[in-house]
Amino acid sequence: MRIDLNADVGESFGRWRLGDDEAILDVVTSANVACGFHAGDPLTLSRTVASAVERGVSIGAQVSYRDLAGFGRRFLDASADELSADVLYQIGGLDGICRRIGTRVGYVKPHGALYNAIVHHEAQASAVVAAVVAYDPGLAVVGLPGSVFLQLAEAAGLRVIREGFADRRYLPDGTLQPRREEGSVLTTAAEVSDQASRLTRGTVVAADGSQIPMSVDSICVHGDTEQAHELALAVREPLEAEGVEFRSFVP
Amino acid sequence: MRIDLNADVGESFGRWRLGDDEAILDVVTSANVACGFHAGDPLTLSRTVASAVERGVSIGAQVSYRDLAGFGRRFLDASADELSADVLYQIGGLDGICRRIGTRVGYVKPHGALYNAIVHHEAQASAVVAAVVAYDPGLAVVGLPGSVFLQLAEAAGLRVIREGFADRRYLPDGTLQPRREEGSVLTTAAEVSDQASRLTRGTVVAADGSQIPMSVDSICVHGDTEQAHELALAVREPLEAEGVEFRSFVP
Amino acid sequence: MRIDLNADVGESFGRWRLGDDEAILDVVTSANVACGFHAGDPLTLSRTVASAVERGVSIGAQVSYRDLAGFGRRFLDASADELSADVLYQIGGLDGICRRIGTRVGYVKPHGALYNAIVHHEAQASAVVAAVVAYDPGLAVVGLPGSVFLQLAEAAGLRVIREGFADRRYLPDGTLQPRREEGSVLTTAAEVSDQASRLTRGTVVAADGSQIPMSVDSICVHGDTEQAHELALAVREPLEAEGVEFRSFVP
Amino acid sequence: MRIDLNADVGESFGRWRLGDDEAILDVVTSANVACGFHAGDPLTLSRTVASAVERGVSIGAQVSYRDLAGFGRRFLDASADELSADVLYQIGGLDGICRRIGTRVGYVKPHGALYNAIVHHEAQASAVVAAVVAYDPGLAVVGLPGSVFLQLAEAAGLRVIREGFADRRYLPDGTLQPRREEGSVLTTAAEVSDQASRLTRGTVVAADGSQIPMSVDSICVHGDTEQAHELALAVREPLEAEGVEFRSFVP
Repeated sequence: MRIDLNADVGESFGRWRLGDDEAILDVVTSANVACGFHAGDPLTLSRTVASAVERGVSIGAQVSYRDLAGFGRRFLDASADELSADVLYQIGGLDGICRRIGTRVGYVKPHGALYNAIVHHEAQASAVVAAVVAYDPGLAVVGLPGSVFLQLAEAAGLRVIREGFADRRYLPDGTLQPRREEGSVLTTAAEVSDQASRLTRGTVVAADGSQIPMSVDSICVHGDTEQAHELALAVREPLEAEGVEFRSFVP
Repeated sequence: MRIDLNADVGESFGRWRLGDDEAILDVVTSANVACGFHAGDPLTLSRTVASAVERGVSIGAQVSYRDLAGFGRRFLDASADELSADVLYQIGGLDGICRRIGTRVGYVKPHGALYNAIVHHEAQASAVVAAVVAYDPGLAVVGLPGSVFLQLAEAAGLRVIREGFADRRYLPDGTLQPRREEGSVLTTAAEVSDQASRLTRGTVVAADGSQIPMSVDSICVHGDTEQAHELALAVREPLEAEGVEFRSFVP
Repeated sequence: MRIDLNADVGESFGRWRLGDDEAILDVVTSANVACGFHAGDPLTLSRTVASAVERGVSIGAQVSYRDLAGFGRRFLDASADELSADVLYQIGGLDGICRRIGTRVGYVKPHGALYNAIVHHEAQASAVVAAVVAYDPGLAVVGLPGSVFLQLAEAAGLRVIREGFADRRYLPDGTLQPRREEGSVLTTAAEVSDQASRLTRGTVVAADGSQIPMSVDSICVHGDTEQAHELALAVREPLEAEGVEFRSFVP
Repeated sequence: MRIDLNADVGESFGRWRLGDDEAILDVVTSANVACGFHAGDPLTLSRTVASAVERGVSIGAQVSYRDLAGFGRRFLDASADELSADVLYQIGGLDGICRRIGTRVGYVKPHGALYNAIVHHEAQASAVVAAVVAYDPGLAVVGLPGSVFLQLAEAAGLRVIREGFADRRYLPDGTLQPRREEGSVLTTAAEVSDQASRLTRGTVVAADGSQIPMSVDSICVHGDTEQAHELALAVREPLEAEGVEFRSFVP
């Protein structure tokens, strides 16, 4: 068995630090690096990419709405044309940074409100897909299993990486329980570890206690909380002890 | 004889239009496309690059300080590390846009206050050179003959394009008369045409009336004035009638 | 009879010019001045306010989502707390500029996507109202008759200015025909003049030819089109000839 | 004896936190609140001002160059007109926020690179003074003793607050030893406490060991370091034990 472990990094901006990228990069296999539109000034990106490469971690472009003040967490009703150009520019910007370090962007993972919007929003999902295809049809995309985004990406011939969340509660229909509802975020190492173990085997226990199928190629751990490093280890160490291989999906 | 003709384009931003890019692109051979830091939202860049490619015009990255409010025309005391990462990101961003249109960035021309600063400012000049080399050592750079920037670029093995100005008055030492001094900008088609003709032949008449040597590989015309198209034609048409070939330095 | 005539001004930004503010300010009685979040750098605001004051035109704060790249025309899912603080900051910023010119902000008119959102969006409408009340309960607010925004503003004790559009087609239910539908914008001076005349008398002819009641306190003319000045005159001159007084609602 | 103690606060931005404002506000008497141009989104400002008012701490506008990416720490060659309008807008924006909390801006302290520039840069110093006078000639300004800024402010009739630094080494001529030189920042509570005590009495020990006169009205402690709270206490507690009164200069 084999799985990928991804986390958001490079989300500092200028004077402001966010997350302990070094610690997280010690554990994950894929790094979703911010691209400057919700976080990540170019110098931060440069340092983050260098840290990832040192550790053999794959680089993904964490593309976003243009919204520094809202950290990309607010839906923005951008037109498909605007959004597609914005995404293309962001992938290119990060890939430019990668060249200095001798690596390249290997995949694209939309961030925050954009990630959530394109679970259903066809025009925006299609705009992101078009940008990825235009940049490099060899790039993979990471998204929610069953999302319009992954469906359109697959139809466009892109490699699709289905993502599961070790620390989020699922509903019986396979969607995520909204964050604002109590119990939607798993906070103990034991819970997170258990859910990661199940996801790796293709199932998850939903909020109503039922076990549902959930096939994923990558597990996301969050990088901006205080216990981020600890929870990432809680995902990886027990599974590795069982012989699960942690490897990025990027060749 | 052969010369390149370059102009700044892609300097609109969102709702704001600047310059008549279509008209200017009909005349020039190289387009300095804004990269988002002083002007140029990604959708504008996408349209501008498409227009340039339709006309066979080469694409250059017009990199800048991060200063939308000042249009990149104010010196910013960025550190070498910051500036270098910013330049790399901008080249990459524009190059990302280029991929959709099936072209690539062919050269880099710093914009505004950055252009002026790196005539003398070694740390910033060196930062720009480092970014270009990191992105692609095959890129050319455009700058002022004799500038620290071109000296460092040449030493780093980059192809160097010396630029002359058809509409700016030169001082006897070969530098440009500051804009704030009267008579520093040539405004009639006759003056501009005459200066372009001399520059193509390797000389220019300085402010004191003396003729000085001035070897250039490209002539810059400004794209954001009302008579931009007319002045660009005043440079190109008479020279073409004399048999001078207008061709971009980008292969 | 008496009516106010308002237009958006101060929407340039740095190097970018938008609209002919001087010409529009010659005709209107109230100026909706941008506040920096969708347009309007402080120096532009300073000049615009000075021009308005010279002509005895009242100053309103044209508050917006924080979205320069989208010119405030894209819905942004800001929280009530964020939006309220953003609006308060914008009113204050413009009012700071006003102090130099010896005047004050007299009213608040939300811009673009925010204007449209708070026709129905209660949380955002309420956030704008709270900001205005916190800044100065003596300020008036301008909005669409029947909107949630004006209802909440009235309930909060604010003075409410109902606005009509001389150049937009109305539907039989009194709402505006969406811009994307053909015929939604009136483009000839004759049409605009006729609609303004009816609005001044409390009615409007809807898209289906029926005459419906439409009581308004101010008529909006758009300032960013090429024929803006001409259309504004087409509103004002015939009505003045009939004895209608054009005067701002700001005391 | 009586002295003021000031610190920078409100320097978070959106998702990014900086400094422990609550802890610092427990100790200081004057709060230099960011105004959105180098840090401080409006919601952050709103919370910071509320925290300050709860504690009876005076509010100052910490105005800056427009440079979020550089945190206002990079010299920007803004024209006097631009800078003056920018400063006016920032004071107004923060003052708008203050109205919700029932307080007002009481003074202005330039931030970072602007603070340093206007020690000598006459055009920019004059621009800041003009903005303060235009906003409210009753506002105080905080700056370096002997700076061009304070000289011009005094000449313009503004109340001038001379500031000393408890944690910076002074040169024998009364200027600050540049940060890049070793030993320029005092890091132990004992050193900081000693220097604050001397400053309160009108002297300071310079880098060469000589005691020089240094009359100040306020002592600055930095709020964005980990030991900020501890150092602020090291300034205040011993002096209070000796009977020195800590009180803001704002009436």
